[in-house]
Amino acid sequence: MHICTLVSSMTKIEFEPIGLVRSPEKVSRKGDFSSVEAKIVLNEDLTEGLKGLGEFSHVEVIFFMHIPDSKTHQEGLSLMVRPMGRDDMPSVGLFATRSPHRPNRLGITLCEIVSIDRNVIKVRGLDALDGSPVLDLKAPSLRNWDKYPDMRFADWALRLKEIRLAEK
Amino acid sequence: MHICTLVSSMTKIEFEPIGLVRSPEKVSRKGDFSSVEAKIVLNEDLTEGLKGLGEFSHVEVIFFMHIPDSKTHQEGLSLMVRPMGRDDMPSVGLFATRSPHRPNRLGITLCEIVSIDRNVIKVRGLDALDGSPVLDLKAPSLRNWDKYPDMRFADWALRLKEIRLAEK
Repeated sequence: MHICTLVSSMTKIEFEPIGLVRSPEKVSRKGDFSSVEAKIVLNEDLTEGLKGLGEFSHVEVIFFMHIPDSKTHQEGLSLMVRPMGRDDMPSVGLFATRSPHRPNRLGITLCEIVSIDRNVIKVRGLDALDGSPVLDLKAPSLRNWDKYPDMRFADWALRLKEIRLAEK
Repeated sequence: MHICTLVSSMTKIEFEPIGLVRSPEKVSRKGDFSSVEAKIVLNEDLTEGLKGLGEFSHVEVIFFMHIPDSKTHQEGLSLMVRPMGRDDMPSVGLFATRSPHRPNRLGITLCEIVSIDRNVIKVRGLDALDGSPVLDLKAPSLRNWDKYPDMRFADWALRLKEIRLAEK
């Protein structure tokens, strides 16, 4: 059992995109994306899964960085990076950064929800390029609930937090 | 070009685990994981990529929830869930939750770093079961830097934040 788990969990893991990013940003992830507005076009058969998301002000978007960054493209994977590719930054291990230069090019960004219309979610602050496959959408962690005054949670989520605190 | 992008980004996406979770929790992700201590055993050839991670107090762990939750296991994927499987919670769309019951079973948890010894990172608060493949590790988002008094960032990261604010 122990060995089986080890072996099976080291094989490749496959995910199917649940949707696609449509963004005015098509070339480079450098720069400031905080005010960029993009759309997430969810596969239509998953639309029901968005019910209640509008009660939150933010959503965590998990996407595949489908275009490798220039460093990865030119040199392949090296384990050390300079944050933001800047010469005035030290060279550090890639896991100590959020650089796109990494073994599995997963992007994870907490975005503001601008609007939801059927299967299309308009968000602000998503640093994904146009055409990026979306792998998951998650309500923000309750860990943030009293930290960000600009973040709104669904009533049930706040109630759940109270219940779980009382159960501790 | 437009059509190519759409088609290619809708195919399956493959990731290779970068390591494995070793946890005392082997059966259920229900309950409180905030004080659970687990180890992330990184593939040895990636050890250099951890350089500098110890200057942060926290790390975001991205893992594959390799054991489907009981609802997924029994019913397949339904788009509506009750948070924490509780009857006293409303039925909401799965994307409005962080339930393990989802199309791509990606787990994302911000954990406290207890220690780092070569390729083994001991963390507190990881809600992954023993044997979960790890897909990525990321330094915490600078978005959190002034929100969590218990969170420590590397000096270069704080300097980078100042530089970028000044450039705005």
